[in-house]
This record gives sequence, structure tokens and C-alpha cells, in this order.
Amino acid sequence: MKKYLMGIDVGGTAIKIGQFDLEGILINKWDIPTNKTDCGQHILPEIYEFLDSIVNLDEVKGIGFGVPGPVTNGVIKNGVNLGWDVLDVKGEFLSLLGNKEIIVKVSNDANVAAAGEVFHGAAKGYKNVCLFTIGTGVGGGIIIDGKLVDGYDGVGGEVGHMLVDHNRRFTCNCGKSGCLETVGSATGIVNLGKMYRAIDSSSKLNRYEKLSAKMVFDFAKKGDQAALKAIDEATNYLAYALSLVTLVINPEIFVIGGGVSYAGKFLLDKIESQYYQYVTPFITHAKFALAELGNEAGMYGAAYQVR
Amino acid sequence: MKKYLMGIDVGGTAIKIGQFDLEGILINKWDIPTNKTDCGQHILPEIYEFLDSIVNLDEVKGIGFGVPGPVTNGVIKNGVNLGWDVLDVKGEFLSLLGNKEIIVKVSNDANVAAAGEVFHGAAKGYKNVCLFTIGTGVGGGIIIDGKLVDGYDGVGGEVGHMLVDHNRRFTCNCGKSGCLETVGSATGIVNLGKMYRAIDSSSKLNRYEKLSAKMVFDFAKKGDQAALKAIDEATNYLAYALSLVTLVINPEIFVIGGGVSYAGKFLLDKIESQYYQYVTPFITHAKFALAELGNEAGMYGAAYQVR
Repeated sequence: MKKYLMGIDVGGTAIKIGQFDLEGILINKWDIPTNKTDCGQHILPEIYEFLDSIVNLDEVKGIGFGVPGPVTNGVIKNGVNLGWDVLDVKGEFLSLLGNKEIIVKVSNDANVAAAGEVFHGAAKGYKNVCLFTIGTGVGGGIIIDGKLVDGYDGVGGEVGHMLVDHNRRFTCNCGKSGCLETVGSATGIVNLGKMYRAIDSSSKLNRYEKLSAKMVFDFAKKGDQAALKAIDEATNYLAYALSLVTLVINPEIFVIGGGVSYAGKFLLDKIESQYYQYVTPFITHAKFALAELGNEAGMYGAAYQVR
Repeated sequence: MKKYLMGIDVGGTAIKIGQFDLEGILINKWDIPTNKTDCGQHILPEIYEFLDSIVNLDEVKGIGFGVPGPVTNGVIKNGVNLGWDVLDVKGEFLSLLGNKEIIVKVSNDANVAAAGEVFHGAAKGYKNVCLFTIGTGVGGGIIIDGKLVDGYDGVGGEVGHMLVDHNRRFTCNCGKSGCLETVGSATGIVNLGKMYRAIDSSSKLNRYEKLSAKMVFDFAKKGDQAALKAIDEATNYLAYALSLVTLVINPEIFVIGGGVSYAGKFLLDKIESQYYQYVTPFITHAKFALAELGNEAGMYGAAYQVR
């Protein structure tokens, strides 16, 4: 008798494991460390052993994974954060399960976070959703007709690498420059904060050697002009990227998550007010929401895939 | 006994009607003029009467429409080219059909053109497709998992209105400036051709008072530097827009259609060579194809919706 869905969010330092009932209610959750030794070859066996120790696998309908990298057909293409290169995560885990009848699905971690918000968070009840996860980078997740869009090469929702800064002022981790990540993520906010404080000696941002995105937000809220310029510019790039997504798939709702989203309504208002200048004039009522599941979104969304 | 699909592409001057068997083979086709008098209120009744005169409606499984404007749930939001404003095309046509058991579906004309290429053209066999229709404007059609993506406000695939020219040199029909249409369509190629010939007195484009996109292509192929710059810039913007679509939905194949696509391999090579600089480095083998159905794509795609 199938009773449970397991959602597994495989991160670079920890693996979050959630046990859900078939309705998507979280019953239990665990964190286990990510063992990246030997090119990450122990990760999947250790997950299997842990699952086998906490739940009767015969009662599990499906096991869903979120993994950090582009995924197509269960294969991760570039799993460097885990010590993996190309790995058939789905195939390997099905082998570990042997002849048990369990569905296994694997998607990119930003995509499953979007699915999590659909399953039990800010986008519950919506079938066409775009999530921006704004943290150190900018991840994106696209849901169409209730299904995750991984894309042919696994780069569906990789909005962080849209070229938006045509002056290409900052270099991205991907090797290119001008990506949304370089100006719209926490890193990007720091990039812009440093740039604007350098040309405004009155800015209080100059008091600190090391800047964080939170500092820039906090001083912007207090009216510091250099900080405000940095936030206005970062949110303008985010709004522009959201307009581009609109003109491709025109989702019902945009959800903004990740560490930067803790800036809350201040962030959302900035993004929303700058969004409409970029979209078709008759769009005047787009829906924006803050993510609700925090760093559990991936776990929920991983389970959503096998519901 | 249901034997036929009807595909109806409602244009501003003519309505193309195709009769297909259930496999999507075109059996017969007709053109009737678009009667835009009285705010276009005769268009749907005249289509109904024409259909009733050429086919036994009891043998029709479904009737699909492509209409020029954003569509959601069968309702066109802005059908100005037909004299329509907001019109429930699906509802009105179902009323005309009375109690006949016939599926009716309605989508945007650029979206159905994409579906046409999937049904019987360049994207046959693919389930995740993006079509750019490059003519007077730039239309887009998005197919995910075999289904058209109309979008919440009907602007799914409205790639022509992505802001790509941040200098906003040319005004778009939509009222904004800098849209892809202003630099990537036939109109855009003329815009750029005029700009580059004005600063290059040796350009043969200066011989003509009135430019066309075809002229600019023809002189570019002959090595005229101003014409080449115009084509390189236009195709660069198109390549950039395709990269943005990639980073949202990462389709299996891009199809390029519309009048400008008759420039053929010269156009496709220019787009493709400029595309890779904008996408994730490991994408090195994207598929690009020229549309195959010409101006019959809409008719095919309209029928595809009700297959």
C-alpha cells in the first residue's frame, strides 16, 4: 500500500529529506551531510541507505530529487557542486532500488523549488508559474500546465544567465559577463553597492569594508542615495527579466524566493513598479508573491514531481 | 462518424480554411474575404455559413481558429485588425454550431503557425518548439509538451515586444520603443538599413528612395557594407531574443518563418553564429530550421489544436 512521497533536495553541504503523505503534507524531515568525497560517488548510496532506515520503502509511491545543475531525463549534466560531472541520477537510484515499484524523478533544484511553491506554498492552485530564487545567484523555475519545464539541455528557467547588463560590467560564475546574476542577485546588489558608494563619499555604505546585500537593503530603506541607486538598478534588471519571461510564457503568477526575498514588500514593490514599463501595455495586473517555503521549497517540490 | 478537422486562419484581408483528415493531411482548402464591416460582426457567421456549405458538419471532429491578437480561453483581447475589440470567439462559434458535437479551439495566429510547423512542417515530431515568424512584425509561438502556450493574458510567445534595443532608437506599433520588432523584423531591417546608409555614402542602398528588407538582404549578400551592418545587427538582436527564450523554456528546436525567412540559409547562418555567445557555454548544438509551410502554417496549426 503506497502512502508516502519522499522529497530530496541535494545541496552542496546538506541533503534535505522530507516524508510527505500523498496529499503533500510534510510528516517528517531530516538533514544529512553531503559526502562529496571520491567525486560524490557515495551520495546516492548514502541517501538510499538512509531512506531504507527511516521508512518502509514498499509504502513509498515515489522519490523525487532536486539537484544543483541542468537536468534532462534524469541525468545531471554539470553537477560540479557535488563532485559530479555528468551523472544518470535517475538510473543510478533506480538500480539501488532494485525491483521495488517506486517512481523516481529528478530535476534542477531551482525548478523543484518552484514546484514546491506550487505544491504547498505561494503558488498553490496555480498551474503556470515562474519562480525567481534570488540568493548568491539567481535561479529560475518554470511550471507550465502543472509540469516542470527542464528544457532540452536542462537550462529551462536558467534566467540568471540572461544577458541583461549590456555594458557587461561584472563577470559571472558561468564565465560570461552581464548575466542577470551579476546585477540582480545578492552578489549583484553588492557589485552595484560598491560601484555607487565609490562615486558618493556621503554614502554610509563607505563605512564598511565588506558589504552584504542586506546592508545595501537596510541603508536603502533608510534613504542612503548610493544604496537606493544600487537597489533600484538591481530590481530594475529583475523586473526586466520578469518581463522577458512574460513575453515567452506569460505565467499566472511570479514568485520571488531565495535569501534576498527576505527584503519582503520593499523588494516586491520595487520590482513590480518597474515591471510594467517593459510589458505589453494592457498587462496592468500581474501577480507577484513572496515565496513561502523558504529553504524547504526544494524538498516539497522534489516530492511534487512524484505525486 | 468524425472524419475531418477544420483549420481556420483568420487574417485581416482573407480567411484561409483548410479541411484535414484526422491524420493532418490537407484534403481541401479555400480562401474567403474577411468582411470587416460593422466592427467585424459578420466574420464568424460568414465562416459558419461557408463551412456548412462545403462540409457535412456532423463529420467534423473539431474546428480550430487562429486569430490576430492575444487570446485566453477562446477570447481575443485586442482584435483590432478584424474590427474586433474583445470577443469570445469560441463562445460565439459554439452558439452558431448549436448542439452539434464539435470541439472549438482558438489561439493567437503566431501560436497556431508554430503548431502548424509541429503538425506537418519543420518541427514535425518535436514536442517543445519555438517559432519566430519574422515579417512586418515579429510573432512568436511556443509549444511545450505538445501544447500551445497562450499565456495568462494571451501574450505567450509575444517575443516581438521584448525590449532588446536599450537605446530605443525606433518606435514600435505597440506604443513602446526598442522592441525586437523595431530592429529584427522586415520593418526593423529597413530601419537599420536607412540608418547605416545615411552614414555610408558609398552604400548602394542610397540609390533607392524606398527600401525593403529584401533589398537590404540582397545587397548584404553582394557585400555592401551598410547593408551587411544592418543585417548583422538585426540578426544579432534575433539571436539574442532566441537566447532569452532558451533560458526560459530551452526548446528542442527553433523554427524561423515569415516573409523574412525566405532569405534562407544566409539568414539562418547569421542568426545561429551569433546565438551561442548569449547562451550557457555547454549549449553548442541548438537546432534551427526554416519554416516549411509558408502562409499555410496557420491553417495547419489551427487544425492541430483540435486533432
